[in-house]
Amino acid sequence: MKKQQQLRPGSYQSGTGFIHRYQELVRKEMIPYQYDVLWDRIPGTEKSHVIANFQNTARLLKGEQPEEGFYGMVFQDSDLAKWIEAASFSLINHPDPELEKELDDVIRLIGEAQDTDGYLNTYFTLNGKEKRFKDLLEGHELYCSGHMMEAAAAFYQATGKDSLLKIMEQNVDCIYRHFIEEKAPGFPGHPEIELALLKLYHLTGNQKCLELAQHFINVRGVDTEFYRKEAEARDWSIWGNDPNNGEYQQSHMPVRKMKDAVGHSVRAVYLYTAMADLASLTGEAELLEACRALWDSIVNRRMYVTGAIGSTVIGEAFTVDYHLPNDTVYGETCASIGLMFFASRMLELDPDRRYADVMERAFYNTVLAGIQLDGRHFFYVNPLEAVPGVSGKAQTHLHSLIVRPSWYACACCPPNAARLIESIGMYAYGENETTGFCHLITEGKVTMENGLSFLCETEYPYGFQVTYRIEKGGKTLALRIPGWSRSWKAEKNGQALPQNLVKGYLYVETADGDEITLYLDDSIRRLYASSKVAADTGSACIQRGPLVYCLEGVDNGGDVLSLRLKENGAAKALPYDASLLSGIIPLELEGYVSAPQEELYSDRKPEQIPCLLHAIPYYAWSNRGENQMRVWIPEEK
Amino acid sequence: MKKQQQLRPGSYQSGTGFIHRYQELVRKEMIPYQYDVLWDRIPGTEKSHVIANFQNTARLLKGEQPEEGFYGMVFQDSDLAKWIEAASFSLINHPDPELEKELDDVIRLIGEAQDTDGYLNTYFTLNGKEKRFKDLLEGHELYCSGHMMEAAAAFYQATGKDSLLKIMEQNVDCIYRHFIEEKAPGFPGHPEIELALLKLYHLTGNQKCLELAQHFINVRGVDTEFYRKEAEARDWSIWGNDPNNGEYQQSHMPVRKMKDAVGHSVRAVYLYTAMADLASLTGEAELLEACRALWDSIVNRRMYVTGAIGSTVIGEAFTVDYHLPNDTVYGETCASIGLMFFASRMLELDPDRRYADVMERAFYNTVLAGIQLDGRHFFYVNPLEAVPGVSGKAQTHLHSLIVRPSWYACACCPPNAARLIESIGMYAYGENETTGFCHLITEGKVTMENGLSFLCETEYPYGFQVTYRIEKGGKTLALRIPGWSRSWKAEKNGQALPQNLVKGYLYVETADGDEITLYLDDSIRRLYASSKVAADTGSACIQRGPLVYCLEGVDNGGDVLSLRLKENGAAKALPYDASLLSGIIPLELEGYVSAPQEELYSDRKPEQIPCLLHAIPYYAWSNRGENQMRVWIPEEK
Repeated sequence: MKKQQQLRPGSYQSGTGFIHRYQELVRKEMIPYQYDVLWDRIPGTEKSHVIANFQNTARLLKGEQPEEGFYGMVFQDSDLAKWIEAASFSLINHPDPELEKELDDVIRLIGEAQDTDGYLNTYFTLNGKEKRFKDLLEGHELYCSGHMMEAAAAFYQATGKDSLLKIMEQNVDCIYRHFIEEKAPGFPGHPEIELALLKLYHLTGNQKCLELAQHFINVRGVDTEFYRKEAEARDWSIWGNDPNNGEYQQSHMPVRKMKDAVGHSVRAVYLYTAMADLASLTGEAELLEACRALWDSIVNRRMYVTGAIGSTVIGEAFTVDYHLPNDTVYGETCASIGLMFFASRMLELDPDRRYADVMERAFYNTVLAGIQLDGRHFFYVNPLEAVPGVSGKAQTHLHSLIVRPSWYACACCPPNAARLIESIGMYAYGENETTGFCHLITEGKVTMENGLSFLCETEYPYGFQVTYRIEKGGKTLALRIPGWSRSWKAEKNGQALPQNLVKGYLYVETADGDEITLYLDDSIRRLYASSKVAADTGSACIQRGPLVYCLEGVDNGGDVLSLRLKENGAAKALPYDASLLSGIIPLELEGYVSAPQEELYSDRKPEQIPCLLHAIPYYAWSNRGENQMRVWIPEEK
Repeated sequence: MKKQQQLRPGSYQSGTGFIHRYQELVRKEMIPYQYDVLWDRIPGTEKSHVIANFQNTARLLKGEQPEEGFYGMVFQDSDLAKWIEAASFSLINHPDPELEKELDDVIRLIGEAQDTDGYLNTYFTLNGKEKRFKDLLEGHELYCSGHMMEAAAAFYQATGKDSLLKIMEQNVDCIYRHFIEEKAPGFPGHPEIELALLKLYHLTGNQKCLELAQHFINVRGVDTEFYRKEAEARDWSIWGNDPNNGEYQQSHMPVRKMKDAVGHSVRAVYLYTAMADLASLTGEAELLEACRALWDSIVNRRMYVTGAIGSTVIGEAFTVDYHLPNDTVYGETCASIGLMFFASRMLELDPDRRYADVMERAFYNTVLAGIQLDGRHFFYVNPLEAVPGVSGKAQTHLHSLIVRPSWYACACCPPNAARLIESIGMYAYGENETTGFCHLITEGKVTMENGLSFLCETEYPYGFQVTYRIEKGGKTLALRIPGWSRSWKAEKNGQALPQNLVKGYLYVETADGDEITLYLDDSIRRLYASSKVAADTGSACIQRGPLVYCLEGVDNGGDVLSLRLKENGAAKALPYDASLLSGIIPLELEGYVSAPQEELYSDRKPEQIPCLLHAIPYYAWSNRGENQMRVWIPEEK
């Protein structure tokens, strides 16, 4: 059943191109910056207390008096976990003894903050052991454990050291004892541990991990009253969320019955990722069918053209089919990262470019848009339309910021993006015994366990010639031809290859020294949304390669709302400009600017004056101050 | 300063046309239906307990045991007040001894529910006298008193009976004692009593009414901390609203400093109405300037093309300039009624058609859209776009219903619309010693105190010839030429009149027997919103006469979102169809239907297939079941 699997960390080394620049941004800016945040060392930024929470927990467990109680969000521990994971992947890509020492130190601290029974969570250790596992709805204990398991796996893969792995195996024992041996009811309010347990299982073969993951997936939503009963059994709660809002945390029905992607979008895609991974392990048709239905629900009816998901801030959630407002969208960076996870697991089951196309869409647009080009400011929310004066100001738009803040009290997205970028090779490539899969086009060197190794040379996403120089061949190379590439050709050693695709992949036999080149479509394309999407009717959006473009005020006389795109008008890619927005190819498109209309409503259509529209890649928006921005532009003949 | 004033109730009698049909709907359906609701006599409808609350209060005050405690919203008393007002106006228009007896009976009951000190409120009398005037933020005591004062005025004008007037003058004494003599701090959380006190003052000359109205207007927002202090001084509250959200209840600054229309839109326009009335009485320039600024803020930057106001359900409030989403709008029926009040008071100060144009826009579109054609179902929220599956379903659209429910627990809008329609002549006409003003075009007979009387004959809003047959002349007739009427002509006794307008009014000298005829523009017009309104870019809306049109699914193959309006395409008014939607003129417009696109996003623009679009007046939408509906239609060449 399992067609192929993710590449091991370290099997992909970026070269000097686009991906490399982002990995360097993560390594040089985000990881050190986030480390300082964990330690509360950034003046003027809200304190995170992440390390302080672990230190105080360690003191308490040693019988000393903590200096302070727990501080921060209940899931604050996961910030450290995600930082460890990102730093570990960075170590693989770029050895750094100082960083490794920092990792050793914080892992030692984590060990000291672990209770003798393996329990690990600073909030519940500092706030009273009697509350453990009593608020699965909001407590995030299992969520934090899950992230720490992922960190343990990455640190082990980076260094061969099992220090964190041992801590987390004891934690697995603790959780296993509670939920399996002692048969405690319930399942995590925020899915995450399921995919993490499966990751540990893949790495270590620990059967308890598999059993626990299956357990949490199988019992979820079976007792739809569980959270209500749980809430009634205690006289406290973390936030007082409604325990009856089952859709929010995907506890409204058993997972195998799910057909529509609903609720908190990060919770949703984390759960679906684990479901797909489990289906891949067990080959269970019913679970796989649910995964396919949920995938279709997202990408066919509930996803933005930028790969953003979550149409509303209310519950940071999916809403209903075709409801995709561009201005009030939530579109959390983490949700698009989770969508990449889900896509990656679906690809393992079924190497079909439809999964990789979405993974690429989410990565190059929403995930990268979450990060300022300086690596020090971040969006949680990724709108497709921003209007100064409305965005961040109107009651309905308070979540929709127009410039990236430096950090958040709830800091999930920045470290999540960091770990994703440092481990992008795991998503870009896959392998099985016979074949190496190239799902994403990323320049650099790939060394697979099946023996295949090659160098990928390209200026992608700004260049559309992609050359694979096979160092060690003898296996099949499966090259995804992106769905957006209307025309393409491929050559091996200068000879054209037949255009036979299997589910969007070109399967090429390789030998040592082969040179395989793809020529993808470099045209500027327009996308049209289905008329069912009320927000986009009459408008088009611009895409070139995998990049969705947008219009920003700073390039367009300040006023994007007055611009119209000329239907079938000329569109030109300007030369690559290394000095603009860390290096982009801007586009020029024929369009119109609507003459100013002072009246709110007028019975005379303002003159549509021909002009050139200047578009930049969406991921690079909001790097030049407050700006109008639009992805969907009304078309005019 | 005071240029003209509203017509007395009863000075306008509708004929047999459009207004008459609505007045008959109110008289035959709404008033009896609402009366039964007050008495909890409608099976299957949520009980209102309005009369029951008064009965129980009366029992308590007699020293008997109430059968039940207070039930309903804290402002439930105002439902009875608005019904009395509507029924009284109806009595003026159409004498009805049975209805008058019902009025006498409920007024007797109100008297029995009044405390010996003049205090009148069933919630606070049943829930403990010690709470009186302690929660001005949410308690609505002064709001309910205000509505009852308006009812008292109307009942007196209808019958000459001062029974309710006496009750309310005692209530004025009670409020005066508390706020003026005893110098209690504070002002009403929901403005209403200010305009009501001024109405009583105009009727009776009671100086206490003027003084109290001035007091409440003058102290409002001076102590911006008042509600916080009030909340801190008690250990209970009605709903627990945030006392610091000053904009919500317009307590964020002194009224004379206000420039932007903010907060709860009904509260806002009720306050502005009283401010304009007071400015008109006192001639105070500063207050008048604030009124003008607030007017401009609404109509130039924060009003929908339907005359709806309140861009968000969050606080049922204004948001920011040019933020006018068509689907998530609140657009409460009551807010547009309040906007008509405000317009009417501004017209008294300054007979300029810009006020009357807005009054007409609000009336013929949002106010009438609030009422099902059967008179038994009502919208609070009046969206400009409705999409089954999204409207009423998505978390952001739960308020935006797609069919009118029969009644609401919070039943403010239906009786508010009823009283407005029955007293429409007061808004349509004005007078001073020398001149009769026709602000709105309503068929029927007008008899002014200045001696002028005339008959207005027209099929407006579906016919654009308007004939005024002067019965008693000798005064000037000031006829508003609507701002939307690009071309027009006027004749007196068959002779063309010069097209000299003063602020949009044609001033015509009259003599007994004169016949003055207006020929207004019957063309089908397109309106374009300023590009600053993101939601409307690239779209047009259709208007004919004062009626905004919309496309509804039932007339257009079910799918309105796929329709485009042909730029400069032909548009045709079909013959008046008496059997359709209680009688309308449907429009046919050249347009396109976008070929179906199954993919969520496609890089091929769907074919735009020429077709005819079928438009109906917006006020008549949602009378034929669940339907897509749109006011703003994307244009295509």
